[in-house]
Amino acid sequence: MDILSVIEHKKKNMALTEEEIRFFAQGAADGTIPDYQLAALLMAIRLNGMTMQETAWLTDCMARSGAMLQPDVGGIPLDKHSTGGVGDTTTLVLAPLVAACGGKVLKMSGRGLGHTGGTVDKLESIPGMQVELDEETFVDIVRRVGCCVVGQSKNLAPADKRLYALRDVTGTVDSVPLIASSILSKKFASGAKAIVLDVKVGSGALMPTLDDAIRLAKTMVEIGKILHRPVSCVISGMEEPLGSRVGNALEVKEAVEILQGKVQGPLKDVALFLGSRMLLNASLAKTANEATEKLAHAIETGAGLEKLKEMIRAQGGMPDVCDNVVLLPTAPCIRPVLSPESGWLSATDGVALGMAAQKMGAGRMTKDDVIDPAVGFIMKKRIGDWVEKGEEIAILHACGTASADEAEKNILAALSLSPVPAPPSRLIYALVDENGVQEINL
Amino acid sequence: MDILSVIEHKKKNMALTEEEIRFFAQGAADGTIPDYQLAALLMAIRLNGMTMQETAWLTDCMARSGAMLQPDVGGIPLDKHSTGGVGDTTTLVLAPLVAACGGKVLKMSGRGLGHTGGTVDKLESIPGMQVELDEETFVDIVRRVGCCVVGQSKNLAPADKRLYALRDVTGTVDSVPLIASSILSKKFASGAKAIVLDVKVGSGALMPTLDDAIRLAKTMVEIGKILHRPVSCVISGMEEPLGSRVGNALEVKEAVEILQGKVQGPLKDVALFLGSRMLLNASLAKTANEATEKLAHAIETGAGLEKLKEMIRAQGGMPDVCDNVVLLPTAPCIRPVLSPESGWLSATDGVALGMAAQKMGAGRMTKDDVIDPAVGFIMKKRIGDWVEKGEEIAILHACGTASADEAEKNILAALSLSPVPAPPSRLIYALVDENGVQEINL
Repeated sequence: MDILSVIEHKKKNMALTEEEIRFFAQGAADGTIPDYQLAALLMAIRLNGMTMQETAWLTDCMARSGAMLQPDVGGIPLDKHSTGGVGDTTTLVLAPLVAACGGKVLKMSGRGLGHTGGTVDKLESIPGMQVELDEETFVDIVRRVGCCVVGQSKNLAPADKRLYALRDVTGTVDSVPLIASSILSKKFASGAKAIVLDVKVGSGALMPTLDDAIRLAKTMVEIGKILHRPVSCVISGMEEPLGSRVGNALEVKEAVEILQGKVQGPLKDVALFLGSRMLLNASLAKTANEATEKLAHAIETGAGLEKLKEMIRAQGGMPDVCDNVVLLPTAPCIRPVLSPESGWLSATDGVALGMAAQKMGAGRMTKDDVIDPAVGFIMKKRIGDWVEKGEEIAILHACGTASADEAEKNILAALSLSPVPAPPSRLIYALVDENGVQEINL
Repeated sequence: MDILSVIEHKKKNMALTEEEIRFFAQGAADGTIPDYQLAALLMAIRLNGMTMQETAWLTDCMARSGAMLQPDVGGIPLDKHSTGGVGDTTTLVLAPLVAACGGKVLKMSGRGLGHTGGTVDKLESIPGMQVELDEETFVDIVRRVGCCVVGQSKNLAPADKRLYALRDVTGTVDSVPLIASSILSKKFASGAKAIVLDVKVGSGALMPTLDDAIRLAKTMVEIGKILHRPVSCVISGMEEPLGSRVGNALEVKEAVEILQGKVQGPLKDVALFLGSRMLLNASLAKTANEATEKLAHAIETGAGLEKLKEMIRAQGGMPDVCDNVVLLPTAPCIRPVLSPESGWLSATDGVALGMAAQKMGAGRMTKDDVIDPAVGFIMKKRIGDWVEKGEEIAILHACGTASADEAEKNILAALSLSPVPAPPSRLIYALVDENGVQEINL
């Protein structure tokens, strides 16, 4: 077999065979196929597409291109993945809650890049917290505690690692088969047997339209079916930050306060929805209502908060932050952003808000940037709210006055006030799983 | 401007702007765009195509990516190019004839690779012949003699050089806009003002079907129109070798013998047809008949042969080969191939015959192989001929017995004998120029 004939076949819009896809994935992983041939093939896949079966083979072959974990965690290894949101800390809320309900959450998470945050960066704002653990320790914590969140292992799915980097610089990111196989190959390699995917939709998301997002979700559910690992997808909006806080320590605080039962709102609602799908996938609840009630109960009893403490302790972090959030890093310059006029908050630019936090130091502009865990901002208004001139619209947590001034400008520019009332933004649009597409209005 | 946005536009099937195409060609030439991004863009062009205007811009930008010759040759600089044939020595016949009729033939030619021969390799079988000349000498010979044939200059169209090499290994050869712009950019950079293109059609050709070949021809004619350089395309067949000989010195002999007036047949007919289009393009004849008669006259008077001698002398070669072809290299093992059965020669595999000669040492398997100028074979039969069992079907000129044995096997395998008569193969199918497509039955 040679790569040129594989390229020729995809160029002529033929379906590739399993052998051809394995050859391609293996050659991507071991470096025997040069970048330019991979790039040509990626563009041919982007333009001519792939069948479900081809996409499933690609997922499987990329997963098998490196180590395949077979973790014995004393239950079904569960995972949840988001395609990338702003102010989205659902993992830190749902992982302890699902663990408190008997689930085994085995989560390898990314770092933030661009306007979206990364769970691993957020966790690192907890003093002492270790997110780079060896596989044995990782699996052991999941078995004992019920949840563990670490950074992506370097040994998993090396084919995906190479192709992912190449797609970014060859205009081949926006391909449903390539996105679906990239996401799922890493999950399958890490040993997850049941997966809940949070597919974001909207102007700043990978999938700009609801149709695109549903197409991606259907593809991932179908791949899960072919490869015998249940996949459920939740289509959620990202018009505005999900939680009220954007920034690493600030988001950890919000997650803790939700687990303490002190904070309600969209972040909690979406976390419970996603968590309920995880319990159902693991057969730890019979109905969606039962699952949600169990999770809510774990908040009321404090069992979820206890699990988060256990996880933090197991990962070397200071569990006291769960009782006393002021132990988390705090920014030196805290001040409000006041609205320069009155009106209904009719739209926010989620990407611009994410970038505003990134520029404050909460995210990286390049891979080598160092994050300031303390900085970010708290939004005091959501889409649909009335804002009075001079009212607090956000609270900045900045490293200094200059940074705060810049952030204030960026945040105000990302908000649209209207003289007419606007409806609140939609949190969840649909649930896509083996039963098909179900509209959800949350 | 950045290359990623150019890739994005072509991926979305948009027409690129002149600025985008110039940026791409310049970046290919100066190495600032990496191979993998060029490869992705080439595949997007292969799959989404290019408009005539885009293709003309690409041609012009690739031509201008390096040196642009503005040769003063005392007339319109004429060029002729073939997309690659077997036993096709038309250049060595028509260049001296056109020069004898007052034309100025400025020909940069390739080396053979794969099953097709290269004019430069053929010329090098003439003792002393220099095909690597500096531009000044090259232009001076064209001005004085009327024709000169040299290897492709390294300074011309560097963007095409890089893209051509990349297309070969990324499955993006078979794209009409990429083929057309590649061929014409080199011609325009070398200063040719009127160009006759011999577009081969058939199983071994770049363009497998007549429709494909006409599409390529129309594209090149249209680009010539947009860039104000007249282009005429002749669509010719390559079911069998054009001349009766395949191999470097053997083909030079055949060209000399045509110019001596001793040999008739398809090679002469096609050379005169192509030459007549060159005379018309240079306004050295008013009608096709007049042009063909002038060329035939140059054979009768010996003026064409004299021009070939002048050119060989000017390029350091031994002109005596034109009077005494035995001065050309001769193979040590010459022997006939006898037909193992009787029948009508109904089909030959031109590619297989070209490869048979290549394996004998007449061509290169890799770029670094050294050619044996003496080897090859003479076909004694053409498609449509009756072959008697035991009759000479070809004469081998091999470097030894083992090579002759292998060649005999390969040649016989490339020929099909049939119990029913077959029509002779078609030499020329059509002429495509500014007046449109005209069917030619030669």
